[in-house]
Amino acid sequence: MSTDSDSRHDSDNGIDPDVFRDDDDRISPLWLERLRAFLSAGRADDLAMVMAPLHAADIGDVLESLDADERLMLVRLLGERFDYSALTEVDESVRTQMMEALPNAEIARGVAGLDSDDAVFILEDMEQVDLDEVLAKLPTFERLSLKRSLDFPEDSAGRRMLTDFIAIPPFWTVGQTIDYLRREHDLPDEFYQIYVVDAAYSVLGTIALDKFLRAPRSTPIAALMNTNLMLVDANEDQEEVARDFERYDLIEVGVVDESKRLVGVLTIDDIVDVIHEEADEDIKLLAGVGDEDISDSTLYTVRSRVPWLVVNLIAAVAVSMVIGLFNATIEQMVALAVLMPIVASMGGNAGTQTMTVTVRALSMRELDGRRLRRLISREMVVGLTNGVIFAVLIGLVTWLRFNNIELGAVIAAAMVINMAVAGTAGILIPLTLDKFKADPAIASAVFVTTITDIVGFLAFLGIAGLWFGLF
Amino acid sequence: MSTDSDSRHDSDNGIDPDVFRDDDDRISPLWLERLRAFLSAGRADDLAMVMAPLHAADIGDVLESLDADERLMLVRLLGERFDYSALTEVDESVRTQMMEALPNAEIARGVAGLDSDDAVFILEDMEQVDLDEVLAKLPTFERLSLKRSLDFPEDSAGRRMLTDFIAIPPFWTVGQTIDYLRREHDLPDEFYQIYVVDAAYSVLGTIALDKFLRAPRSTPIAALMNTNLMLVDANEDQEEVARDFERYDLIEVGVVDESKRLVGVLTIDDIVDVIHEEADEDIKLLAGVGDEDISDSTLYTVRSRVPWLVVNLIAAVAVSMVIGLFNATIEQMVALAVLMPIVASMGGNAGTQTMTVTVRALSMRELDGRRLRRLISREMVVGLTNGVIFAVLIGLVTWLRFNNIELGAVIAAAMVINMAVAGTAGILIPLTLDKFKADPAIASAVFVTTITDIVGFLAFLGIAGLWFGLF
Repeated sequence: MSTDSDSRHDSDNGIDPDVFRDDDDRISPLWLERLRAFLSAGRADDLAMVMAPLHAADIGDVLESLDADERLMLVRLLGERFDYSALTEVDESVRTQMMEALPNAEIARGVAGLDSDDAVFILEDMEQVDLDEVLAKLPTFERLSLKRSLDFPEDSAGRRMLTDFIAIPPFWTVGQTIDYLRREHDLPDEFYQIYVVDAAYSVLGTIALDKFLRAPRSTPIAALMNTNLMLVDANEDQEEVARDFERYDLIEVGVVDESKRLVGVLTIDDIVDVIHEEADEDIKLLAGVGDEDISDSTLYTVRSRVPWLVVNLIAAVAVSMVIGLFNATIEQMVALAVLMPIVASMGGNAGTQTMTVTVRALSMRELDGRRLRRLISREMVVGLTNGVIFAVLIGLVTWLRFNNIELGAVIAAAMVINMAVAGTAGILIPLTLDKFKADPAIASAVFVTTITDIVGFLAFLGIAGLWFGLF
Repeated sequence: MSTDSDSRHDSDNGIDPDVFRDDDDRISPLWLERLRAFLSAGRADDLAMVMAPLHAADIGDVLESLDADERLMLVRLLGERFDYSALTEVDESVRTQMMEALPNAEIARGVAGLDSDDAVFILEDMEQVDLDEVLAKLPTFERLSLKRSLDFPEDSAGRRMLTDFIAIPPFWTVGQTIDYLRREHDLPDEFYQIYVVDAAYSVLGTIALDKFLRAPRSTPIAALMNTNLMLVDANEDQEEVARDFERYDLIEVGVVDESKRLVGVLTIDDIVDVIHEEADEDIKLLAGVGDEDISDSTLYTVRSRVPWLVVNLIAAVAVSMVIGLFNATIEQMVALAVLMPIVASMGGNAGTQTMTVTVRALSMRELDGRRLRRLISREMVVGLTNGVIFAVLIGLVTWLRFNNIELGAVIAAAMVINMAVAGTAGILIPLTLDKFKADPAIASAVFVTTITDIVGFLAFLGIAGLWFGLF
């Protein structure tokens, strides 16, 4: 993407402190260095000048790159020139740090000029006492509209919506509406459709701006409006809403309350973040890191990861107890101890592959009856096929390494069993978690690898014990 | 989301074949059953009737749920009533299957009515001979515009762009433009901004529709336009473009060719899919499943997974050779074989946690100088801290289980070492891959777990051997 301000990219940007982003799309170290110099020298006007061309998202990136006290100094020095919408673009831990340190009066001044969705996003995690203090300092109209949004549940459409929108009666004409839009100055900054409502603010229809622009002035609104309504309930979860935006390529939808009154609008730019977060959540849950950001503190990170590791420790001890059953067997043939991790590791990998595909399909709601049956049978066949392939491979390797064809046959047999089990567990475990309304991404990984470890060790040591008569 | 057509949701939808999606947002089995009945009875009009209210995305879901021959029958029965844009909404394997089976003449008829971006998306994977045949059958103007898009590299902005847009000269007024929009019928279906261009189609500015609607008729276009241009190069990769859309909350940007001529526009709905795919790709690469969908055939799936499993097999054999070095040690103390997988498994988990956080931060371009140094030192401290915590835990468990305090001390020491290594490897491996321009998601997982396995076994068996004098 080239904009006027970064066409300078083409020049030699290694030495130009005016260049904000380097070729790798990261904030240029030179630019940051200069900003830090201005910060520590308290040069507010210079600061304001270099920050002025930045988009809120860029300011957010700058905040994340600064140290905690530098962030506060930046806000203090810029004063009214600091754009609070940048706080919607930073990691939660950075936002929390800044919100706790900034005085409530200053926060109230900062959010007063923001769109309602941005203001709610910034305020929603505050302590109730502080929140009340901030709200009390806001103009009545804004206070009421923010309060209404905050009354909806966390992560709901009502929390993310913009409370400004264009609503007109059905008996107007296109011309009357255009005149109203030109006259009225208290309208939302950006809008993509016009809502046609009755006296009770029930939505009768919507008109996309491009359709509207192309209609003659005399066209009655009622004749132009689209009555195939897409509306979301303010209480609906944002992830559900995001799925609809994605599926139906939406740009904006109206949000209605329990009594079907239009209370706000949701636009795609808010939803893009939700779509991103949802996929991100799956990745992180699968890896056993919760709701974590790179800006989180060390202590927070340790606390968030320990529970997953505890679960894994319990699983690992259980697996080790299974191995313990074969003490005598291993004692008589140490090669078994040397080889046993191979079977377990291959099963763990194959199981993780199947599990990941299943978890993603579940979270994208792709699995209805027939597709589900097709997936289950495919994964079982894949597991068995890969089992046979890798049984032959590891069988040969083992035979050559230990010069023992029987040991090769034993490990091959264990491999087939564990790979088939891996495919089956990889699909059935996330499905079962989903059935019981748990997030299949959360616990699947530990379950799957514990099962493939146990089956892997049990099959290999068990078959070996029987074959070689080592019990 | 409630629409007119699924407000029936509220009724008892267990027995109503008119309900398309069930409460879990999946296609209702009853609805599908009825569709299949129509298909096998060849009742084209009934088919058309039940399909008519569906959005292209829903038709795509239906196609994925049907068997291969049913899909073709559906297209054949619906004829002109089949909406080809549904082919942009299905998994690649489903699209390929259908495109190979449908006659080229039929495909040409189907794509002729589509938006240029959808047509390109459907056609781009065809064999060159077939593609040429389809293009030859299209009207000249459409053929040329599709050919131009197809000339841009795969996954570029030029491939994804819509070639229809509204471009006006700067000397017009708002009134003249509105008159033009009302008069001209050959305009794009949907548009969000108007482009102001010079005679050579160089972009001078853009006007968002809402700004446009609110300006008096006499306003000169040149005075209204936004000259802070956001334009993308047609050759730019779609993932780069997606990051900009996401960062700057864009709805639409103009696409320009090498000579800065406006050649098309990219809208957020195409980009949402790219954003989704990018996150999905990270998840799948981390788990060792390539570009895979649930609709892929068994054979394709096996072929796509085998390479990853081969790499893992090689790693597992290497790990097993490390254990083999301690043959004599294990022979004298079988408890070591029983306990050793615990140290390896904990290291693997901790390493995967760190690695996942790092890979995500890298793919979101969040790691510049200072944030990177902060992350590295945090992960090392986290690794060491968790190492101490879990060393104490496993040390106690081992002491109690084997009634051997020395064995507890040995496993605790190995645990601290492996957890600290896990944190370090978890961050350094993806960073190194990124440095060498490899996708850090691809190979990180195998590298990290191989290292934690090797270090885990080496530390535990080595310390034990030294401590108990078992070499």
